[in-house]
Amino acid sequence: MRAAVVTGFDKPLEIKDLPVPEPGPGQVLVRIEASGLCHTDIHAARGDWPVKPQPPFTPGHEGVGIVEALGAGVTEHQVGDRVAVPWLGHACGTCDYCVTGWETLCEAQQNTGYSIDGGHAEYAVADARYVVGVPDGIDPAEAAPLTCAGVTTYKAIKVGGVVPGDRVAIFGVGGLGHLALQYARIFGGETIAVDVTEEKLSLAKQLGAAHVINAATTDPVAEIEKLGGADVAVVLAADPKVVEQAHSALRRGGRLILVSLPKDNVMALPIFQTVLKGIRVIGSIVGSRADLAEVFRLHAAGRTEVLYEPRPLEDINTAIEDVLAARVPARLVLMP
Amino acid sequence: MRAAVVTGFDKPLEIKDLPVPEPGPGQVLVRIEASGLCHTDIHAARGDWPVKPQPPFTPGHEGVGIVEALGAGVTEHQVGDRVAVPWLGHACGTCDYCVTGWETLCEAQQNTGYSIDGGHAEYAVADARYVVGVPDGIDPAEAAPLTCAGVTTYKAIKVGGVVPGDRVAIFGVGGLGHLALQYARIFGGETIAVDVTEEKLSLAKQLGAAHVINAATTDPVAEIEKLGGADVAVVLAADPKVVEQAHSALRRGGRLILVSLPKDNVMALPIFQTVLKGIRVIGSIVGSRADLAEVFRLHAAGRTEVLYEPRPLEDINTAIEDVLAARVPARLVLMP
Amino acid sequence: MRAAVVTGFDKPLEIKDLPVPEPGPGQVLVRIEASGLCHTDIHAARGDWPVKPQPPFTPGHEGVGIVEALGAGVTEHQVGDRVAVPWLGHACGTCDYCVTGWETLCEAQQNTGYSIDGGHAEYAVADARYVVGVPDGIDPAEAAPLTCAGVTTYKAIKVGGVVPGDRVAIFGVGGLGHLALQYARIFGGETIAVDVTEEKLSLAKQLGAAHVINAATTDPVAEIEKLGGADVAVVLAADPKVVEQAHSALRRGGRLILVSLPKDNVMALPIFQTVLKGIRVIGSIVGSRADLAEVFRLHAAGRTEVLYEPRPLEDINTAIEDVLAARVPARLVLMP
Amino acid sequence: MRAAVVTGFDKPLEIKDLPVPEPGPGQVLVRIEASGLCHTDIHAARGDWPVKPQPPFTPGHEGVGIVEALGAGVTEHQVGDRVAVPWLGHACGTCDYCVTGWETLCEAQQNTGYSIDGGHAEYAVADARYVVGVPDGIDPAEAAPLTCAGVTTYKAIKVGGVVPGDRVAIFGVGGLGHLALQYARIFGGETIAVDVTEEKLSLAKQLGAAHVINAATTDPVAEIEKLGGADVAVVLAADPKVVEQAHSALRRGGRLILVSLPKDNVMALPIFQTVLKGIRVIGSIVGSRADLAEVFRLHAAGRTEVLYEPRPLEDINTAIEDVLAARVPARLVLMP
Repeated sequence: MRAAVVTGFDKPLEIKDLPVPEPGPGQVLVRIEASGLCHTDIHAARGDWPVKPQPPFTPGHEGVGIVEALGAGVTEHQVGDRVAVPWLGHACGTCDYCVTGWETLCEAQQNTGYSIDGGHAEYAVADARYVVGVPDGIDPAEAAPLTCAGVTTYKAIKVGGVVPGDRVAIFGVGGLGHLALQYARIFGGETIAVDVTEEKLSLAKQLGAAHVINAATTDPVAEIEKLGGADVAVVLAADPKVVEQAHSALRRGGRLILVSLPKDNVMALPIFQTVLKGIRVIGSIVGSRADLAEVFRLHAAGRTEVLYEPRPLEDINTAIEDVLAARVPARLVLMP
Repeated sequence: MRAAVVTGFDKPLEIKDLPVPEPGPGQVLVRIEASGLCHTDIHAARGDWPVKPQPPFTPGHEGVGIVEALGAGVTEHQVGDRVAVPWLGHACGTCDYCVTGWETLCEAQQNTGYSIDGGHAEYAVADARYVVGVPDGIDPAEAAPLTCAGVTTYKAIKVGGVVPGDRVAIFGVGGLGHLALQYARIFGGETIAVDVTEEKLSLAKQLGAAHVINAATTDPVAEIEKLGGADVAVVLAADPKVVEQAHSALRRGGRLILVSLPKDNVMALPIFQTVLKGIRVIGSIVGSRADLAEVFRLHAAGRTEVLYEPRPLEDINTAIEDVLAARVPARLVLMP
Repeated sequence: MRAAVVTGFDKPLEIKDLPVPEPGPGQVLVRIEASGLCHTDIHAARGDWPVKPQPPFTPGHEGVGIVEALGAGVTEHQVGDRVAVPWLGHACGTCDYCVTGWETLCEAQQNTGYSIDGGHAEYAVADARYVVGVPDGIDPAEAAPLTCAGVTTYKAIKVGGVVPGDRVAIFGVGGLGHLALQYARIFGGETIAVDVTEEKLSLAKQLGAAHVINAATTDPVAEIEKLGGADVAVVLAADPKVVEQAHSALRRGGRLILVSLPKDNVMALPIFQTVLKGIRVIGSIVGSRADLAEVFRLHAAGRTEVLYEPRPLEDINTAIEDVLAARVPARLVLMP
Repeated sequence: MRAAVVTGFDKPLEIKDLPVPEPGPGQVLVRIEASGLCHTDIHAARGDWPVKPQPPFTPGHEGVGIVEALGAGVTEHQVGDRVAVPWLGHACGTCDYCVTGWETLCEAQQNTGYSIDGGHAEYAVADARYVVGVPDGIDPAEAAPLTCAGVTTYKAIKVGGVVPGDRVAIFGVGGLGHLALQYARIFGGETIAVDVTEEKLSLAKQLGAAHVINAATTDPVAEIEKLGGADVAVVLAADPKVVEQAHSALRRGGRLILVSLPKDNVMALPIFQTVLKGIRVIGSIVGSRADLAEVFRLHAAGRTEVLYEPRPLEDINTAIEDVLAARVPARLVLMP
């Protein structure tokens, strides 16, 4: 099979011809139909983060495809099922996080496309317990971005506790942001899209944003304050300055949801305002299998729209360059 | 009546002889029996904070006493009732904060001993709707510290979502900390007291702390990590460095509760760890009337112990010096 | 002014010419534009319930209109504002229910159109703190049904804890049910409408119901079980048998929300299934001012559709007959 | 090994000599030190419930002992660890209940001492993922009753949402009730014990009950109403009449928690009061592994006291008779 393999942190990925992997006990073999390209893949391929993956490996944690074979003892899925292979490739199932609905915090987790091979290939094996069924009628190329970009922003809105009438500011309209806006609206939020190009803001309007703010030409804090301040701000732009802006834009009781991981790691936040305004700053990372199932159900019910551009798997390096150059509309999805 | 009055931000308070105030419509006149001295009183008296009170005024928001007279239309209390006059002197009662249980965030609130005269006097008038009944059998000198130090730390533990078995680190054992430790334990927490003197840590042990850490001689982050990390950390020490330490000491899913207001306002927190560990940083300010009623019920049921030292009202300036010099065991309570 | 007055429990209402009432301290005078007719009005007019209103009185708790005059001390609204005058006409503002967001349970509450005169008149006076502003752009005739039918079903869905993907069964599609279906869908639910006429079920489909069940011809329990059982069932039909059916239709972890008040008061529910399936049976009554504000914001954002039929105030007795005969499509709204 | 075996629903249990079972893949072999006798064991042995176990089988779901051997692939525990083998012997780990913290509702669950052999024996095998570690310093004979009676009542209090100051009525003081009282108090509740013998009420007082009511001589509803009504009522007495009393004893916003399973399955509850008072009736069954770990932590911290009487395993039939005759103080624990 063809697979996009990271062979070193300083090299482009190589399209290699590898043997189709065998599913071990408890695993499924998935023939990948579509595999979303996430910024995390680029960090993985370059070894940007403190805990690094081990080359050679295949990135990709938005792989969607058809179960082709079952390893020993698998009862959770059947051959022919369509499944998604998400970032949470495995968790222990017994720690307090796993037992209380927070498996995404499990200390023993394995991450798809990072510590174990991922979806940018023709086939992938995966723990049958941690792949999630894709409901009938969902296009695999749409399911792919939902598998990480979708569930991550859905969870961000959920932990933000959005209730109808809340003003929700989304900082950054792109692969994640265009979905965040939709989830915020589904939960009843009055959405505010903040970005730096008219193109993105125009997209936000089409997706139902009640307000759009061009942060390149206007002060978003002042604009949001004019509206009464934000109840929830979700930061999808990888810049501590944006985090600080988003904090300032909150009204009392506001929740600041952190999702993206900037290179500059430190945010400088005011203690006085955090206390007096009763603000909550909440780090949110992907979502559980149950969250992903909810995301798929919403899509199957026609409640969300996924914007993506398909690319051949072979073009992964060009795709990465396009993402880094911000030349892409929403999400790129690799088609093996 | 005698009252301790701030006549200017650069002067000591003056004990003045003022007329006993008349309760207006909806107000009660309270003969103060005991009035706790909070650090906020000192900030008020010195005009330390951005929004300043207007001298002359009487500070004090832990006043406890007996209702002596009712203004027009008061039905909430009767002459002879013992009540507490807390920081939240008045709120609008109609905004979304007030209606949803978050009156402490009301934008239209009046604060006792700050924007309106407070409890460091023989008498105070107060909005009958915002004073809280003190149950029979509670000593007014113990009720006083509960009125702010108590409810503030109780609320901090509550918003921290402490459940049995959680490790709860309290940074700073004093007027607030000695109560925070007790509330954390009541909610089932395994408490960790962090302070810089053996005297305070010894007090913490008496109050049931499961672990004590002297941050003057040991690295609290390393010590707490050895225990497995903290589920909840409450910062009662007015220093951004302590906030940053407390953040580092959290395990995944941890909640950092900010209560104290340092002069240096900026905390520098890591985005990466906040996201990956799913951390929540929560600003918490005092508590509602319902929270205070709960605090009183716990005390009436013998569940909490209040450490305080009575001082004559006349000695307020010495008392302030003693607080600033950290010469006091827990809370000073002024007795008019 | 003209008002529809109950002069005795065994008589039709009389359209009387009464003096325009004067707003007392804290009250507003509202010129009613539209006033929804709720089944509760009929119970009030006939003295059906244990605690009876005192004739003569004017029913109506879905009155919407324009503030024409302010009583002494009113700051919450201004002359010219459009407001809604809901069932919760007054609450004490200080009990634990009021302080914790549950004002609808206040023991000291006054109810509009029941213990105090209501909206079926050209004018009404109301406690300024308990009327709720209607946002610009909402038609008063649509705001009227939202004021009780809307907020009541919205709250039912909210206490039901509906999350995306939940199957939500609505038993009874009418004045309340057509709104319940929409709120369940807004919260992400997969809705199931249960009623006994094809006309109602056809309406439910138009409003986005994923499934419809005609309980006159099919067993709704069996049908819902085929779908996997309901996560939430909301009972809007005034019949204990329907409550019992709804309970049986729940899957594990399910929530049964009781809203309507049947004449036969007793429901017979199985303990074994309630325990083993971890079922919750939840009584829900109207909603708070904050809930109503959320309902209005959703409507202003175009998220809900209100079905109603206007009737002249004079025709109130005919309107009541039509409601009792189930001859009306959704909500009747009286226009003074 | 010796085991107490049910060989038929109409016979006493037999003490048999069986081979020590081999732990299969993912299982541990536990040498039982203590095994609590629960009323459910009696229902199991007699085939009282609709879904019956298959004789021959060994009941017991409060088994505590030492891991003696590990099956293939076990990483969760080590030989020598002390563990508890609870009712939830196995769950699927992938359904929405399992993933969201509600594994006790998993449709695919196996139950210890019911669908799989339990702890009333010298040895038991168990799914390594579903046994729970017992912290150092807890006596196994005390850990046993905590494994079901403890976690079940702890969970009941938790789903009851008890906060400090809540009045919590416990109907039935025995094996479960004596622990429920303690948990209610830990969560800050003001506890009311209701039973029919002075001996039980005297025990309740020792355990900190604020009020005791002898339902044999006084009307508990009237007594509880005098106190202001109950915020939470937990029904541990297997009688629908008690459920109905407990419902009547609730104040507005009250929660009625159902735990015990009467032979007469139907409770007759008033709809009107449920709706107007905003009451919640909640079925609660055992607790998750995380709940049990919390229960153990509370006990290790000295927060709970377990009352039990040890009995030789051989005497199981006498023990059952004593339980049925209500001749036992709290919990009987079988010692193999």
